Amino acid sequence: MHFALPLPLQSGAQLRDYTLVYETYGTLNAARSNAVLVCHALNASHHVAGTYEGQARSEGWWDNLIGPGKPLDTNRFFVIGVNNPGSCFGSTGPMQTHPDTGVPYGADFPVVTVEDWVDAQARLCDALGIEQLAAVLGGSLGGMQALSWSLRFPDRLRHCIAVATAPNLSAQNIAFNEVARRAIITDPDFHGGHFYAHNTLPRRGLRVARMIGHITYLSDDAMEAKFGRRIRGHGSLAVDAGNTGLAYSTQAIEFEIESYLRHQGDKFSEYFDANTYLLITRALDYFDPARAFGGDLSAAFAGARCQFQIISFTTDWRFAPQRSREIVKALVDHKRDVSYAEIAAPHGHDAFLLDDPRYHGVLRAYFDNIAMEAA
Amino acid sequence: MHFALPLPLQSGAQLRDYTLVYETYGTLNAARSNAVLVCHALNASHHVAGTYEGQARSEGWWDNLIGPGKPLDTNRFFVIGVNNPGSCFGSTGPMQTHPDTGVPYGADFPVVTVEDWVDAQARLCDALGIEQLAAVLGGSLGGMQALSWSLRFPDRLRHCIAVATAPNLSAQNIAFNEVARRAIITDPDFHGGHFYAHNTLPRRGLRVARMIGHITYLSDDAMEAKFGRRIRGHGSLAVDAGNTGLAYSTQAIEFEIESYLRHQGDKFSEYFDANTYLLITRALDYFDPARAFGGDLSAAFAGARCQFQIISFTTDWRFAPQRSREIVKALVDHKRDVSYAEIAAPHGHDAFLLDDPRYHGVLRAYFDNIAMEAA
Repeated sequence: MHFALPLPLQSGAQLRDYTLVYETYGTLNAARSNAVLVCHALNASHHVAGTYEGQARSEGWWDNLIGPGKPLDTNRFFVIGVNNPGSCFGSTGPMQTHPDTGVPYGADFPVVTVEDWVDAQARLCDALGIEQLAAVLGGSLGGMQALSWSLRFPDRLRHCIAVATAPNLSAQNIAFNEVARRAIITDPDFHGGHFYAHNTLPRRGLRVARMIGHITYLSDDAMEAKFGRRIRGHGSLAVDAGNTGLAYSTQAIEFEIESYLRHQGDKFSEYFDANTYLLITRALDYFDPARAFGGDLSAAFAGARCQFQIISFTTDWRFAPQRSREIVKALVDHKRDVSYAEIAAPHGHDAFLLDDPRYHGVLRAYFDNIAMEAA
Repeated sequence: MHFALPLPLQSGAQLRDYTLVYETYGTLNAARSNAVLVCHALNASHHVAGTYEGQARSEGWWDNLIGPGKPLDTNRFFVIGVNNPGSCFGSTGPMQTHPDTGVPYGADFPVVTVEDWVDAQARLCDALGIEQLAAVLGGSLGGMQALSWSLRFPDRLRHCIAVATAPNLSAQNIAFNEVARRAIITDPDFHGGHFYAHNTLPRRGLRVARMIGHITYLSDDAMEAKFGRRIRGHGSLAVDAGNTGLAYSTQAIEFEIESYLRHQGDKFSEYFDANTYLLITRALDYFDPARAFGGDLSAAFAGARCQFQIISFTTDWRFAPQRSREIVKALVDHKRDVSYAEIAAPHGHDAFLLDDPRYHGVLRAYFDNIAMEAA
């Protein structure tokens, strides 16, 4: 969908003449009361569920949760997935042409925030004729968007479902983002963010960024269970006389975990835009609804009016349960209607994307209740 | 001290014609029974205590612990600090000339292990006329060397003091090392490890490596207390109209934590050798005394005969207390004499270098006891 009206941004800049790519699933009911907006995190898109005809491995990123008969049942709900501006999956972003210059935005794409994305999403809802959403749902950075909806448009959603998220990033979270950004920005192939003109990609930096990310998505225990200290077969590489299977090399892969990380880094560097990586990690850094209230999160949530379902995972050390409890406390301070589920799951931050029966059970029950009120 | 006899390495290679730089503090007693070897970790050296005359900021890296009247009292003990081969502070390493080629070893320096270092240290003790050490002390990677001493030379030390260490690296530990190595190796200025010949340094990679390291040295809480989400003053940089103090930039420093990390990375990249970084992180990865016993750590420690003091710190998530308890359990399984102190300290892995009164109290009492038996 094309938007001719400029979008004013938090930074004071504006995004003009922009396009949002979106997908919908299910049918909007006559009362227009059954729409659920699903917000994506760092490397996902509008394609939240289903597959594209004739395309293998085209499954939506939250397909285990969303679809006919699934916890978010598209037989009952009208689900909207939208790619945020600044991303690299079709909506206006750094890879697209700057209307003033005729070349890709690159590093000149304006810095966008969670609030900017929510504003863009609200305009999409306007255009779709949806005055009030049954729910906004998101995990991680998507959860921040769901929270932001409850603050910016308190009357335009009945439920906010925020999974594996936080009211802001900790210093450690920002630190990991910053290292990833430095790896990208200092890659000579980044060319100050204008690498498109040089027919190259800052693959080295993207690989390192993705490897760091992956470490923070998995729990220590899950990594230990999945890889431990297992040595990788070396094929023809010489190994030591002690028959340990080790090649004694600083550059060859010795351990399975190294192989996994390098593979993830390689894959990512081929499909993800470096400028988008910078923008999205910055949006994470900036999100802090309490900032305007002197750091008082309770004050920030005073204006919220919808009902909340907050979910965290015990082994998520990126956005630990403690961070979700801060949100719950702020809501309880204002006697908001909030349910909180802390799921014992071994998979760390990644758990929000996985098909855990207790986790999906909570969401199924919650959406069942919403469906009854929407009917 | 120069060694003409080649040092056989775990890899099957050997190090020939090598030099070890070392320092000693205090006086070896007539019985030669009061020597304490202090092993260094990743970026430290033989210079464990004291200052160099006329040189500002030349304090040894463990000066708060070691010196006259300090917990490790050099009025009573003869303390030895030695730079390990492969390091970059004077002992034979990648920056030094390969005897066969006449150019720096660079990436051709053989891979060295904790066991190799312990063997080299034992030869230094031979040359100093020390048959048995009163104690071997080390933190982090230095603690691994202390543990290795107890296994390779069970009769050559009376006490093993291993602080903030682990019986091997977890998958997550290896993962962080691997990302740091990839950042260095894929820096175009690395030149396959032969950057000396190109008159350059892989500064970009070293910076990223050090930034990652720093995140893992500090606890989440310590980082939050020290930096939190504090915004850095932007000087002349334009900030947004909302008066948030934010510049809305992906590349400028916005948060204090970013400034701190970049500064640490910059400093490190100017003084630390990239090939040494690869070698030392690999030595960490490889250390695993249980490997030769099918993963049975208790079996690995069956041959140990000295007394042990194991110390961990509650907020150390790099080498968590759980990892120290694994060592204690293995020792208790064999009825070894072991004391264990788990210090409640907020500083994460870095705590082993800091002057915490409870921590230093434990070490002072332990060394007082050793001094009495050595007298």
